[in-house]
Amino acid sequence: MDAICVELQTTWHAEIPISAAMGTEVVSFTDDELVVRAGLEPNINVHGTAFAGSLYAICALTGWGMVWLKLREAGLDGHIVLAEGRIEYGRAVTGDIVCSCRFDPEVQGPGLAAFAKSPRTMLALSCTIDTRGKQAVRFEGIYAIRKR
Amino acid sequence: MDAICVELQTTWHAEIPISAAMGTEVVSFTDDELVVRAGLEPNINVHGTAFAGSLYAICALTGWGMVWLKLREAGLDGHIVLAEGRIEYGRAVTGDIVCSCRFDPEVQGPGLAAFAKSPRTMLALSCTIDTRGKQAVRFEGIYAIRKR
Repeated sequence: MDAICVELQTTWHAEIPISAAMGTEVVSFTDDELVVRAGLEPNINVHGTAFAGSLYAICALTGWGMVWLKLREAGLDGHIVLAEGRIEYGRAVTGDIVCSCRFDPEVQGPGLAAFAKSPRTMLALSCTIDTRGKQAVRFEGIYAIRKR
Repeated sequence: MDAICVELQTTWHAEIPISAAMGTEVVSFTDDELVVRAGLEPNINVHGTAFAGSLYAICALTGWGMVWLKLREAGLDGHIVLAEGRIEYGRAVTGDIVCSCRFDPEVQGPGLAAFAKSPRTMLALSCTIDTRGKQAVRFEGIYAIRKR
């Protein structure tokens, strides 16, 4: 795994203890796609499937991680907070939670570029979680970023 | 605390281990208002405030708990899942997380009553979390309920 992915996961586990309790791991960051995984067991619910709150939290972290990675790539430093989130649960997640977030230069690029010249910006990002080959969860988060 | 609140908290901790890791506790269920609390420490984030994912998860649990309590009161048994959630973070939560969910008989009563006669229903519920006397978080969840 890239050193930057190790640093992201280490930051999460050290500074967001619930991310460690959920077993959140960075899988990869390739071609502007960040993939994050967590086992089902620590995130199980009363139905034996993944807890809706864990699914959301993993999406929220994945989107946050994407912003953190893209700021790093751009040589920028920012304070990143989630301002708003919405999520739809289309089907139950019955195995490991694998969350994917894609950065589209045409969609999120302008907001990121604006931050180089401005004290703050907002970035909207989507994450998805599939289960047995089908989309189970779709998350949209709006992240507020400001210079430190 | 009422026996029913003890049972709700015990169910969460036994069957949703991340709810125990977050330190989620039922505070009270009085006059159709459910109050749930979790300490800041297990839910802290990189900014030293409450993690957005924990705030959402605690709201999701509180809404679920409200549906569970109201089904019990009505003598009904149902399989409760969160179908959709949205949340707005207006300000950072800097202390214990105290989440409140109110059941309004005029708003949610008809959906609950319908479930007595039908195999499934949907209930929309709101939760709020205040910090230092001001609203910090507003959550809206749509819960799908079906007979077992």
